[in-house]
Amino acid sequence: MERRILDIGQSVLAKNQGLADALRADFAERGIFVLNVVSSPGSGKTELLAKSLNHLAAKANVGVIVGDLATDRDAARLEGHGAKVLQVTTDGYCHLEANMVRAAAERLGLEGLDILIIENVGNLVCPSTHDLGEDLRVVLLSVTEGEDKPLKYPGIFKSSQAAILTKMDLAEPCGFDRETALRNVREVGPQLRVFETSARTGQGLEEWIAFLLAEAERKAKVAISAGA
Amino acid sequence: MERRILDIGQSVLAKNQGLADALRADFAERGIFVLNVVSSPGSGKTELLAKSLNHLAAKANVGVIVGDLATDRDAARLEGHGAKVLQVTTDGYCHLEANMVRAAAERLGLEGLDILIIENVGNLVCPSTHDLGEDLRVVLLSVTEGEDKPLKYPGIFKSSQAAILTKMDLAEPCGFDRETALRNVREVGPQLRVFETSARTGQGLEEWIAFLLAEAERKAKVAISAGA
Repeated sequence: MERRILDIGQSVLAKNQGLADALRADFAERGIFVLNVVSSPGSGKTELLAKSLNHLAAKANVGVIVGDLATDRDAARLEGHGAKVLQVTTDGYCHLEANMVRAAAERLGLEGLDILIIENVGNLVCPSTHDLGEDLRVVLLSVTEGEDKPLKYPGIFKSSQAAILTKMDLAEPCGFDRETALRNVREVGPQLRVFETSARTGQGLEEWIAFLLAEAERKAKVAISAGA
Repeated sequence: MERRILDIGQSVLAKNQGLADALRADFAERGIFVLNVVSSPGSGKTELLAKSLNHLAAKANVGVIVGDLATDRDAARLEGHGAKVLQVTTDGYCHLEANMVRAAAERLGLEGLDILIIENVGNLVCPSTHDLGEDLRVVLLSVTEGEDKPLKYPGIFKSSQAAILTKMDLAEPCGFDRETALRNVREVGPQLRVFETSARTGQGLEEWIAFLLAEAERKAKVAISAGA
């Protein structure tokens, strides 16, 4: 029985990977850069995205797919920031999968989009194993969660390309040890590009947005060059 | 294929439930009260437990099983507070299951224990569906995570018997809206006994410990009465 479950688990992951690869090819053909945002519940994904959209909307056509177990609160919070937004509710399921993103992308409509942002379900474990066809996976770490999270949840930090420290305005009241946190992030994910931000004060947002736009532009150039 | 996965998922849950029921009967026979502590990563489970042990250790023999994906940091933090502590690492798995608790309990040793505390993996989704044979499930909600978490992660709030608001000392810098949070907690989990705490200042800890000890005593009386 145990072996059978393991085999089926592997088969489900393989199926997701095949679908994610197909999605990635489709996004590339359409010239859409795709971002997958992951973190614990309450790390500030939605607030960071709302503020990011304020900066992005003038420079790119952006669509957002928001995943939650229940409610459309996050989609409502992201309305009015210049992007098309679609809420996906997973009915208790703990992460988004490629087939959910494919269905959501069809409903959202991809025509004319430059950037597609996927806000994953708040979970620092399960999203790490599920590719959604994204170009960039970014993990958020709130200063309120403690400096040890990269060591305790290594999978998600190893599988991401950027890490964003959030709520930096709360670092002092939380007694946040910045040096230790950065050392832990680098130890687990030496590949990670790190940003230190506060959606409340605006700290670090311009640098993060500039990086995101540069990555999107780099992908577009590669795609054009590959097609030439 | 989809139907087969669903069936196997149900079969895995049924197997866990059977094992949890057997564990619960064994704990009852031994006169051990079992607490399962669940929350997001970084909500303050370990810090609350360290402070709780300071109060509990003089009044009861306590054992702790700590679940994490990786590292034995939390067990190390809980040493020296008067309880036996055992770290379980799940190697990436997103929650504890009854078979892990059974194996850990054997290694920890149950002889002479009055209370067994299980600190689950930091995850506000997956632990909700897995009974560990506990008498009391308590979900933590840090004020730093926002007031809407009960609405967005209903499963874990519906399946718990108590909710502990943590890090209340940070309520003001976080702009925490206490009334809204309490309303959301009550809306999703009207059965929840609610505590407002700060491990840093000690706020609410005595009330929480008194409740825990009363629940343990109530169980012992029921067990004695049932055995008479």
